[in-house]
Amino acid sequence: MTQRLTLDDLNDMSAEAFAGALGDIFEHAPWVAEGAAARRPFATVAALHDAMMEAVRAAPPERQLAFLRGHPELGGKVARAGAMTAESVAEQGGLGLNRLGDADFQRFERLNSTYRARFGFPFIVCVRRQTRSSILASFERRTALGPDEEFATALSEIGHITRLRLAQKVEGEGMPRTDGRLSTHVLDTHAGRPAPGVRIRLYEVEDEARSLIAETATNADGRTDRPLMGGPGGGPLRMGVYEIVFAVGDYFRAHGVAMPSPAFVDVVPLRFGVAEPEGHYHVPLLATPWSFSTYRGS
Amino acid sequence: MTQRLTLDDLNDMSAEAFAGALGDIFEHAPWVAEGAAARRPFATVAALHDAMMEAVRAAPPERQLAFLRGHPELGGKVARAGAMTAESVAEQGGLGLNRLGDADFQRFERLNSTYRARFGFPFIVCVRRQTRSSILASFERRTALGPDEEFATALSEIGHITRLRLAQKVEGEGMPRTDGRLSTHVLDTHAGRPAPGVRIRLYEVEDEARSLIAETATNADGRTDRPLMGGPGGGPLRMGVYEIVFAVGDYFRAHGVAMPSPAFVDVVPLRFGVAEPEGHYHVPLLATPWSFSTYRGS
Amino acid sequence: MTQRLTLDDLNDMSAEAFAGALGDIFEHAPWVAEGAAARRPFATVAALHDAMMEAVRAAPPERQLAFLRGHPELGGKVARAGAMTAESVAEQGGLGLNRLGDADFQRFERLNSTYRARFGFPFIVCVRRQTRSSILASFERRTALGPDEEFATALSEIGHITRLRLAQKVEGEGMPRTDGRLSTHVLDTHAGRPAPGVRIRLYEVEDEARSLIAETATNADGRTDRPLMGGPGGGPLRMGVYEIVFAVGDYFRAHGVAMPSPAFVDVVPLRFGVAEPEGHYHVPLLATPWSFSTYRGS
Amino acid sequence: MTQRLTLDDLNDMSAEAFAGALGDIFEHAPWVAEGAAARRPFATVAALHDAMMEAVRAAPPERQLAFLRGHPELGGKVARAGAMTAESVAEQGGLGLNRLGDADFQRFERLNSTYRARFGFPFIVCVRRQTRSSILASFERRTALGPDEEFATALSEIGHITRLRLAQKVEGEGMPRTDGRLSTHVLDTHAGRPAPGVRIRLYEVEDEARSLIAETATNADGRTDRPLMGGPGGGPLRMGVYEIVFAVGDYFRAHGVAMPSPAFVDVVPLRFGVAEPEGHYHVPLLATPWSFSTYRGS
Repeated sequence: MTQRLTLDDLNDMSAEAFAGALGDIFEHAPWVAEGAAARRPFATVAALHDAMMEAVRAAPPERQLAFLRGHPELGGKVARAGAMTAESVAEQGGLGLNRLGDADFQRFERLNSTYRARFGFPFIVCVRRQTRSSILASFERRTALGPDEEFATALSEIGHITRLRLAQKVEGEGMPRTDGRLSTHVLDTHAGRPAPGVRIRLYEVEDEARSLIAETATNADGRTDRPLMGGPGGGPLRMGVYEIVFAVGDYFRAHGVAMPSPAFVDVVPLRFGVAEPEGHYHVPLLATPWSFSTYRGS
Repeated sequence: MTQRLTLDDLNDMSAEAFAGALGDIFEHAPWVAEGAAARRPFATVAALHDAMMEAVRAAPPERQLAFLRGHPELGGKVARAGAMTAESVAEQGGLGLNRLGDADFQRFERLNSTYRARFGFPFIVCVRRQTRSSILASFERRTALGPDEEFATALSEIGHITRLRLAQKVEGEGMPRTDGRLSTHVLDTHAGRPAPGVRIRLYEVEDEARSLIAETATNADGRTDRPLMGGPGGGPLRMGVYEIVFAVGDYFRAHGVAMPSPAFVDVVPLRFGVAEPEGHYHVPLLATPWSFSTYRGS
Repeated sequence: MTQRLTLDDLNDMSAEAFAGALGDIFEHAPWVAEGAAARRPFATVAALHDAMMEAVRAAPPERQLAFLRGHPELGGKVARAGAMTAESVAEQGGLGLNRLGDADFQRFERLNSTYRARFGFPFIVCVRRQTRSSILASFERRTALGPDEEFATALSEIGHITRLRLAQKVEGEGMPRTDGRLSTHVLDTHAGRPAPGVRIRLYEVEDEARSLIAETATNADGRTDRPLMGGPGGGPLRMGVYEIVFAVGDYFRAHGVAMPSPAFVDVVPLRFGVAEPEGHYHVPLLATPWSFSTYRGS
Repeated sequence: MTQRLTLDDLNDMSAEAFAGALGDIFEHAPWVAEGAAARRPFATVAALHDAMMEAVRAAPPERQLAFLRGHPELGGKVARAGAMTAESVAEQGGLGLNRLGDADFQRFERLNSTYRARFGFPFIVCVRRQTRSSILASFERRTALGPDEEFATALSEIGHITRLRLAQKVEGEGMPRTDGRLSTHVLDTHAGRPAPGVRIRLYEVEDEARSLIAETATNADGRTDRPLMGGPGGGPLRMGVYEIVFAVGDYFRAHGVAMPSPAFVDVVPLRFGVAEPEGHYHVPLLATPWSFSTYRGS
């Protein structure tokens, strides 16, 4: 990673230097950084981001519209042709949206053209907070909104996109909240202690298909050494549906607990949805050979 | 179904008629019924079955061996060629073992020939208490047993097979226990009441694949009108791994509960194993939009 | 219990006989039965009760007020002096309200006189649906209501009182719902089966004091042979706070489960409130030596 | 608190100074410290304690017996007369054993004299790990042991007593484990978040009586700012039975959740036992207005 700018530096430099340093945070819109320069100094990085968003919201409607229109289409021709900004490439590439198969490409083309015909600008979404499923769901949901509501939604997505870009580029006091976290904990309520050594797999669930995202095992305290997703510096979680699958039957057998064959509780999938990318999702498993439960913990 | 014999009739008829009536319960072994005839009268159908098994256990070793050898191989050439007794056809047909594809046929042939080479008789199992997964698991497990232990296991499987055949043919006091049952119950612990109208799907899980077995919805008491599997007259459950999948998120949304998108608790799969085909498995779901649990109930 | 009248008899008899038979259901108000006589025949006992309540609601205000004023005070001088109707004596006697100690008598006198000064009639409540705690709580709550709201509340209590009297006196189709039920179930989620032989005590909780109401043990299915309170013919539950105390540690020790001393889970009190006297409260205990849970079941 | 010695100092000083510094750790037995002096240097404080216990175990039987006999009786005449070492006074005083009422004094006298008659030395127990209930229970249990087993038990209690004394007097690497901890956490599984502001009371339960030990409320994360008992530097927990009582109904009402009156879940007592004074007991409450559960967590 390149060296990040400090908030102090940004507060101290000339307006031109400031605009130059942050000119590419908002897609093809250096005027946003220029507008924010006059509001310095900023006490926190979050306040700096707020000021940039304020500059967008204060711009005349035609400028806002031009700004929205300057964004690339999702999974679209621009993406395929490689004509996006480096930031957009990295963001869309995370979900493979720049290398869609033909059928998926057609599907996105259809969604994009319906959306653009309705609102006059491309569908904008902060891809790093999304799974393919959640993007498709929000494409549908947002296309049905009224123009004003959707305009606000698009701006709010731009807020998410630029908050992440800014947090990557600048460091200092009061960083905006950009990190989510998924953690787990396995409690053996048969023996009244944490369950160490339980193999855990995390899957993303899309319709009936599951793709493996992570594989680990519980430590001595029944937790995992690192979050299953996210954590400090890990960025936002992706909205979507997940399954954590616990091989808790093997754990009980390894500890000499008598189990029928097949065991009543053996491989336990816990399925849950993530709707707050910057939230903490703690999804524990409480299990005996004859029962299990989970809840959103903290 | 043909008219069943009554226990009273069997107690009263001549020894020849008795042997004729029950001669085909034990595969190609009319001597079992002949031996049991002398022990009449029987107070219960279960006692009649015990007496027939006793006749098998009291037979000289070479007769027992010939008896075991008279059983068809599982998924084997005899099954394919259609040379089994009608009872065996019906039993093996339930799992499709008489119409295996070539790869599976080869696999069963290999398992059968290893088993036969080791023990000198074909692998016998009460198919109606099994899934494909559990048969393959027990094939492996039993091939590793010592000769005496496996001989006893084979006899015990014959006990299961013939108990079912007898219960189908005879009615009267003290029927042997042959029926299992899978039931569920959805409790809405968010509102403190049973959850009606929850769509439920039951799957059999084989490795990573799932096959749909049943589809229903909860009634006003949060239960299902009929057991998900088994019940009175429904026969034994099949040992194996199952998932009940509850569309409980739709239920909460239909009742006006605010839910994020995607919801934390939405489509909930509960995976569990069945090891006692004649047992009652009650697998309830207790759920709020933020938690769920299950246990083997009663 | 005396022989109950049948609904058929009541439908067939003369208006005078009908009014005579049911004249004492509504306290000192034979005109209620007289008014309902003209509405015969009734298809259900519940419809008969509705018609009687309708006669009350249709009466001119001064008659309604005289009717309310005809009720005895709760725990008051009339009760002490023994001048109530036999029904009122039986109802108030159930909570000991006709033999209060001096301090409690003073307290009820104060509450009664404040209430009467405010509304112009005595405080009326269906005592058989109450505990001392719930009566004192509703005395306070209702004294703060507006006159119209409290008038309606008093009529609704009269509905409860007379429904119970009618159900005791008349039998037939469509009996009004008057029975509540408290049941329990102990599940041993350590061993995956119902817990038999668990000693259970039920207490009513009043402030910090508890009084023992029932004592029993679980049967082979982990349930109790009879409801802990109520059940068919058992009348309404009393609104209030209860504790079921389960000696589940003794159960685990008796089944050879290793337990520390003192055990983490041993004597388990589950405290809960009953607000629907005619409802079914199922309060199960799911326990291991290291965890327990409960919920309102069905 | 007086300045503690460091392990380094103890390793470096003369044998006489060492024996002088630690001579009163073992009651009236300076020879224990003298014996351990030769084993220096010690890498950890725990190793120092082990060496002192080793000196006791290696002593000739008559010396060991004299040592045991040098301990004061629990709640006995010596305690009342004020003739104990300062350490014993502080330890027994924590439970009020040096100021027992006459009836309790008689009870302890009886238990002491039975015990002493049987084993020839006074009943020794590490009072700071006990409640009155657990002392009375272990008095009974230990009086029934065989002489060798009880001798070993008495030495093990001396190990607990002196470990605490040593940990208070010496600081350095590898402190022996002397601190227990009781913590809690309230999860609102109705809304899927921690429950802040829930009032909590902790009681010690002795037979049917409860005494209030602590009173607090949950913080923003649903936890308490400090452990309910113990924690770093807080010393061992006292073995015994406890109740944490959560005013969770008030929490739900304050957050606008509709609740019946009385609420099904309102004031929730969770009763549990503590058997490991140096353990961590995490006793969370998971609650909705219609369900609650707990378990020993971590």
